[in-house]
Amino acid sequence: MTEKLYLEDLSAGMSFENGPVTVTAAEIKEFASRFDPQEFHLDEKAAAESFFHGLAASGWHTAALTMRLMVTGGMPLAAGYIGAGGEVTWKQPVYAGDELSVRVEVVEVKSSQSRPDRGFALLRCETRNQRRELVQVMLARVMVPRRQIP
Amino acid sequence: MTEKLYLEDLSAGMSFENGPVTVTAAEIKEFASRFDPQEFHLDEKAAAESFFHGLAASGWHTAALTMRLMVTGGMPLAAGYIGAGGEVTWKQPVYAGDELSVRVEVVEVKSSQSRPDRGFALLRCETRNQRRELVQVMLARVMVPRRQIP
Repeated sequence: MTEKLYLEDLSAGMSFENGPVTVTAAEIKEFASRFDPQEFHLDEKAAAESFFHGLAASGWHTAALTMRLMVTGGMPLAAGYIGAGGEVTWKQPVYAGDELSVRVEVVEVKSSQSRPDRGFALLRCETRNQRRELVQVMLARVMVPRRQIP
Repeated sequence: MTEKLYLEDLSAGMSFENGPVTVTAAEIKEFASRFDPQEFHLDEKAAAESFFHGLAASGWHTAALTMRLMVTGGMPLAAGYIGAGGEVTWKQPVYAGDELSVRVEVVEVKSSQSRPDRGFALLRCETRNQRRELVQVMLARVMVPRRQIP
Protein backbone atom coordinates (compact mmCIF):
# COMPACT_ATOMS: atom_id res chain seq x y z
CA MET A 1 0.00 0.00 0.00
CA THR A 2 1.36 3.39 -0.92
CA GLU A 3 -1.97 5.24 -0.89
CA LYS A 4 -2.50 7.24 2.29
CA LEU A 5 -5.22 5.83 4.52
CA TYR A 6 -8.05 7.86 6.05
CA LEU A 7 -10.53 6.89 8.75
CA GLU A 8 -12.97 5.59 6.11
CA ASP A 9 -10.29 3.20 4.82
CA LEU A 10 -9.67 1.49 8.16
CA SER A 11 -11.61 -1.42 9.62
CA ALA A 12 -11.12 -3.87 12.46
CA GLY A 13 -8.98 -6.83 11.46
CA MET A 14 -6.70 -5.00 9.02
CA SER A 15 -3.11 -5.87 9.84
CA PHE A 16 0.49 -5.72 8.72
CA GLU A 17 3.85 -7.09 9.79
CA ASN A 18 7.29 -5.51 9.71
CA GLY A 19 10.80 -6.45 10.75
CA PRO A 20 13.06 -7.90 11.85
CA VAL A 21 15.39 -5.35 13.36
CA THR A 22 18.39 -6.55 15.38
CA VAL A 23 19.10 -5.01 18.79
CA THR A 24 22.84 -4.81 19.46
CA ALA A 25 24.62 -4.55 22.82
CA ALA A 26 26.07 -1.20 21.74
CA GLU A 27 22.61 0.18 20.94
CA ILE A 28 21.18 -1.11 24.24
CA LYS A 29 23.94 0.67 26.19
CA GLU A 30 23.73 3.87 24.18
CA PHE A 31 19.95 4.17 24.55
CA ALA A 32 20.22 3.38 28.27
CA SER A 33 23.01 5.87 28.89
CA ARG A 34 20.73 8.60 27.57
CA PHE A 35 17.32 7.54 28.77
CA ASP A 36 17.46 4.69 31.27
CA PRO A 37 20.83 4.66 33.04
CA GLN A 38 20.46 1.49 35.11
CA GLU A 39 23.31 -1.00 35.36
CA PHE A 40 21.39 -3.95 33.86
CA HIS A 41 21.04 -1.91 30.66
CA LEU A 42 24.63 -0.59 30.69
CA ASP A 43 27.09 -3.25 31.77
CA GLU A 44 27.22 -6.97 30.93
CA LYS A 45 28.76 -8.02 34.23
CA ALA A 46 26.33 -6.13 36.44
CA ALA A 47 23.47 -7.29 34.19
CA ALA A 48 24.50 -10.94 34.61
CA GLU A 49 24.03 -10.58 38.37
CA SER A 50 20.74 -8.67 38.07
CA PHE A 51 17.09 -9.69 37.80
CA PHE A 52 17.61 -10.03 34.04
CA HIS A 53 20.65 -12.36 34.13
CA GLY A 54 22.08 -10.63 31.07
CA LEU A 55 22.29 -7.31 29.26
CA ALA A 56 18.68 -6.31 28.60
CA ALA A 57 17.23 -3.45 26.57
CA SER A 58 15.26 -0.72 28.31
CA GLY A 59 11.54 -1.32 27.82
CA TRP A 60 11.39 2.15 26.29
CA HIS A 61 14.01 1.09 23.75
CA THR A 62 11.78 -1.84 22.77
CA ALA A 63 8.81 0.55 22.56
CA ALA A 64 10.80 2.98 20.41
CA LEU A 65 11.99 0.23 18.03
CA THR A 66 8.40 -1.01 17.82
CA MET A 67 7.34 2.51 16.83
CA ARG A 68 9.95 2.52 14.05
CA LEU A 69 8.55 -0.75 12.69
CA MET A 70 4.99 0.62 12.92
CA VAL A 71 5.77 3.90 11.20
CA THR A 72 7.80 2.29 8.39
CA GLY A 73 5.34 -0.59 7.96
CA GLY A 74 2.58 -1.17 5.47
CA MET A 75 -0.23 1.02 6.75
CA PRO A 76 0.51 4.65 5.87
CA LEU A 77 -2.02 6.74 7.82
CA ALA A 78 -3.00 10.03 6.17
CA ALA A 79 -1.71 12.30 8.94
CA GLY A 80 0.96 9.88 10.14
CA TYR A 81 1.00 8.01 13.43
CA ILE A 82 -0.16 10.62 15.92
CA GLY A 83 -0.61 8.86 19.23
CA ALA A 84 -3.02 10.02 21.92
CA GLY A 85 -1.68 7.39 24.24
CA GLY A 86 -1.36 3.71 24.81
CA GLU A 87 -0.87 0.82 27.12
CA VAL A 88 2.42 -1.06 27.06
CA THR A 89 3.09 -4.45 28.66
CA TRP A 90 6.55 -5.97 28.68
CA LYS A 91 6.18 -9.73 28.59
CA GLN A 92 9.83 -10.68 28.75
CA PRO A 93 13.25 -9.07 28.39
CA VAL A 94 14.90 -8.15 25.09
CA TYR A 95 18.56 -9.18 25.08
CA ALA A 96 21.53 -8.12 22.98
CA GLY A 97 21.35 -9.85 19.61
CA ASP A 98 17.58 -10.31 19.67
CA GLU A 99 15.72 -9.71 16.41
CA LEU A 100 12.40 -7.95 16.81
CA SER A 101 9.40 -8.03 14.49
CA VAL A 102 6.00 -6.46 14.88
CA ARG A 103 2.46 -7.30 13.90
CA VAL A 104 -0.03 -4.46 13.99
CA GLU A 105 -3.77 -5.04 13.89
CA VAL A 106 -6.61 -2.56 13.84
CA VAL A 107 -8.85 -3.45 16.79
CA GLU A 108 -11.43 -0.68 16.61
CA VAL A 109 -12.23 2.40 14.53
CA LYS A 110 -14.24 5.22 16.10
CA SER A 111 -15.41 8.67 15.06
CA SER A 112 -14.51 11.57 17.30
CA GLN A 113 -17.45 12.82 19.34
CA SER A 114 -16.28 16.41 19.29
CA ARG A 115 -14.43 16.75 15.95
CA PRO A 116 -16.19 15.63 12.75
CA ASP A 117 -12.96 15.85 10.75
CA ARG A 118 -11.30 12.96 12.51
CA GLY A 119 -11.56 9.76 14.50
CA PHE A 120 -9.42 7.28 16.35
CA ALA A 121 -8.07 3.83 15.61
CA LEU A 122 -7.10 1.44 18.37
CA LEU A 123 -4.12 -0.61 17.25
CA ARG A 124 -2.82 -3.77 18.89
CA CYS A 125 0.87 -4.07 18.25
CA GLU A 126 2.67 -7.29 19.17
CA THR A 127 6.46 -7.33 19.25
CA ARG A 128 8.17 -10.73 19.07
CA ASN A 129 11.76 -11.92 19.15
CA GLN A 130 13.48 -14.36 16.77
CA ARG A 131 11.95 -17.30 18.66
CA ARG A 132 8.48 -15.81 18.07
CA GLU A 133 8.17 -15.14 21.79
CA LEU A 134 6.06 -12.14 22.70
CA VAL A 135 8.26 -9.45 24.29
CA GLN A 136 5.84 -6.51 24.23
CA VAL A 137 2.16 -5.82 23.65
CA MET A 138 1.12 -2.26 22.96
CA LEU A 139 -2.42 -0.96 22.58
CA ALA A 140 -2.12 2.41 20.90
CA ARG A 141 -4.82 4.97 20.20
CA VAL A 142 -3.97 7.02 17.11
CA MET A 143 -5.74 9.99 15.61
CA VAL A 144 -6.83 9.49 11.99
CA PRO A 145 -8.33 12.23 9.78
CA ARG A 146 -11.44 11.68 7.67
CA ARG A 147 -11.21 11.98 3.91
CA GLN A 148 -14.64 13.57 3.75
CA ILE A 149 -16.30 15.42 6.57
CA PRO A 150 -19.85 14.06 6.95
CA MET B 1 17.51 9.56 50.05
CA THR B 2 20.48 7.38 49.17
CA GLU B 3 19.33 4.23 51.00
CA LYS B 4 17.87 1.63 48.62
CA LEU B 5 14.12 1.18 48.99
CA TYR B 6 12.34 -2.17 49.34
CA LEU B 7 8.64 -2.96 49.13
CA GLU B 8 8.29 -2.46 52.91
CA ASP B 9 9.65 1.09 52.56
CA LEU B 10 7.07 2.25 50.01
CA SER B 11 3.62 3.62 50.73
CA ALA B 12 0.94 5.44 48.79
CA GLY B 13 1.53 9.17 48.72
CA MET B 14 5.34 9.09 48.66
CA SER B 15 6.58 11.34 45.89
CA PHE B 16 9.55 13.08 44.34
CA GLU B 17 10.24 15.61 41.63
CA ASN B 18 13.10 15.84 39.14
CA GLY B 19 14.12 18.10 36.28
CA PRO B 20 14.10 20.17 34.27
CA VAL B 21 15.70 18.74 31.16
CA THR B 22 15.66 20.79 27.96
CA VAL B 23 14.58 19.14 24.69
CA THR B 24 16.49 20.57 21.74
CA ALA B 25 15.52 20.51 18.06
CA ALA B 26 18.65 18.48 17.29
CA GLU B 27 17.70 15.83 19.87
CA ILE B 28 14.10 15.68 18.60
CA LYS B 29 15.32 15.05 15.05
CA GLU B 30 17.98 12.55 16.06
CA PHE B 31 15.58 10.48 18.19
CA ALA B 32 12.97 10.59 15.44
CA SER B 33 15.40 9.60 12.69
CA ARG B 34 16.14 6.41 14.63
CA PHE B 35 12.79 5.55 16.16
CA ASP B 36 9.93 7.62 14.78
CA PRO B 37 10.82 8.89 11.30
CA GLN B 38 7.80 11.07 10.58
CA GLU B 39 8.20 14.49 9.02
CA PHE B 40 6.64 16.45 11.91
CA HIS B 41 9.47 15.12 14.11
CA LEU B 42 12.22 15.62 11.51
CA ASP B 43 11.77 18.85 9.62
CA GLU B 44 10.71 22.31 10.85
CA LYS B 45 9.02 23.30 7.61
CA ALA B 46 6.96 20.14 7.22
CA ALA B 47 6.16 20.24 10.94
CA ALA B 48 4.84 23.81 10.66
CA GLU B 49 2.29 22.57 8.11
CA SER B 50 1.35 19.48 10.10
CA PHE B 51 -1.16 18.73 12.86
CA PHE B 52 1.46 19.96 15.37
CA HIS B 53 2.16 23.38 13.74
CA GLY B 54 5.82 23.09 14.76
CA LEU B 55 8.65 20.64 15.33
CA ALA B 56 7.35 18.24 17.98
CA ALA B 57 9.10 15.46 19.88
CA SER B 58 8.05 11.87 19.39
CA GLY B 59 5.84 10.76 22.27
CA TRP B 60 8.34 7.96 22.86
CA HIS B 61 11.07 10.56 23.20
CA THR B 62 9.02 12.27 25.92
CA ALA B 63 8.46 8.88 27.57
CA ALA B 64 12.18 8.08 27.42
CA LEU B 65 13.18 11.45 28.90
CA THR B 66 10.58 10.92 31.62
CA MET B 67 12.18 7.56 32.38
CA ARG B 68 15.57 9.27 32.73
CA LEU B 69 14.12 11.71 35.25
CA MET B 70 12.44 8.86 37.15
CA VAL B 71 15.55 6.67 37.31
CA THR B 72 17.85 9.52 38.35
CA GLY B 73 15.32 10.98 40.80
CA GLY B 74 15.02 10.69 44.54
CA MET B 75 13.49 7.24 45.02
CA PRO B 76 16.18 4.58 44.49
CA LEU B 77 14.34 1.26 44.31
CA ALA B 78 16.33 -1.74 45.55
CA ALA B 79 16.36 -3.63 42.25
CA GLY B 80 16.08 -0.52 40.08
CA TYR B 81 13.10 0.50 37.99
CA ILE B 82 11.98 -2.76 36.41
CA GLY B 83 8.74 -2.07 34.60
CA ALA B 84 6.06 -4.65 33.97
CA GLY B 85 4.15 -2.18 31.87
CA GLY B 86 2.29 1.03 31.94
CA GLU B 87 -0.24 3.36 30.45
CA VAL B 88 0.92 6.50 28.70
CA THR B 89 -1.27 9.45 27.72
CA TRP B 90 0.12 12.35 25.74
CA LYS B 91 -1.78 15.47 26.75
CA GLN B 92 -0.10 17.94 24.45
CA PRO B 93 2.93 18.19 22.17
CA VAL B 94 6.49 18.75 23.36
CA TYR B 95 8.24 21.33 21.19
CA ALA B 96 11.90 22.18 20.60
CA GLY B 97 13.20 24.22 23.52
CA ASP B 98 10.66 22.89 26.02
CA GLU B 99 11.93 22.11 29.51
CA LEU B 100 10.45 18.98 31.06
CA SER B 101 10.12 18.11 34.73
CA VAL B 102 8.52 15.09 36.36
CA ARG B 103 6.63 14.41 39.53
CA VAL B 104 6.38 10.76 40.55
CA GLU B 105 3.91 9.58 43.19
CA VAL B 106 3.36 6.10 44.60
CA VAL B 107 -0.31 5.31 44.04
CA GLU B 108 -0.49 1.76 45.33
CA VAL B 109 1.80 -0.90 46.81
CA LYS B 110 0.86 -4.57 46.43
CA SER B 111 2.40 -7.91 47.33
CA SER B 112 2.83 -10.44 44.55
CA GLN B 113 0.29 -13.27 44.70
CA SER B 114 2.69 -15.83 43.31
CA ARG B 115 6.12 -14.65 44.50
CA PRO B 116 6.63 -13.92 48.21
CA ASP B 117 10.00 -12.23 47.56
CA ARG B 118 8.51 -9.27 45.72
CA GLY B 119 5.61 -6.98 45.04
CA PHE B 120 4.55 -4.18 42.74
CA ALA B 121 4.26 -0.45 43.05
CA LEU B 122 1.96 1.57 40.84
CA LEU B 123 3.55 4.94 40.10
CA ARG B 124 1.82 7.97 38.63
CA CYS B 125 4.33 10.04 36.75
CA GLU B 126 3.34 13.49 35.51
CA THR B 127 5.55 15.26 33.00
CA ARG B 128 5.14 19.03 32.66
CA ASN B 129 6.72 21.69 30.49
CA GLN B 130 8.20 25.04 31.59
CA ARG B 131 4.69 26.54 31.71
CA ARG B 132 3.66 23.75 34.13
CA GLU B 133 1.35 22.36 31.47
CA LEU B 134 0.86 18.61 31.62
CA VAL B 135 2.40 16.99 28.52
CA GLN B 136 2.33 13.33 29.58
CA VAL B 137 0.80 11.14 32.27
CA MET B 138 2.25 7.70 32.79
CA LEU B 139 0.95 5.03 35.13
CA ALA B 140 3.78 2.55 35.54
CA ARG B 141 3.78 -0.78 37.35
CA VAL B 142 7.24 -1.60 38.67
CA MET B 143 8.52 -4.74 40.40
CA VAL B 144 9.98 -4.12 43.86
CA PRO B 145 11.76 -6.79 45.95
CA ARG B 146 10.99 -7.34 49.63
CA ARG B 147 13.71 -6.79 52.19
CA GLN B 148 12.45 -9.71 54.25
CA ILE B 149 10.48 -12.62 52.90
CA PRO B 150 7.47 -13.13 55.15
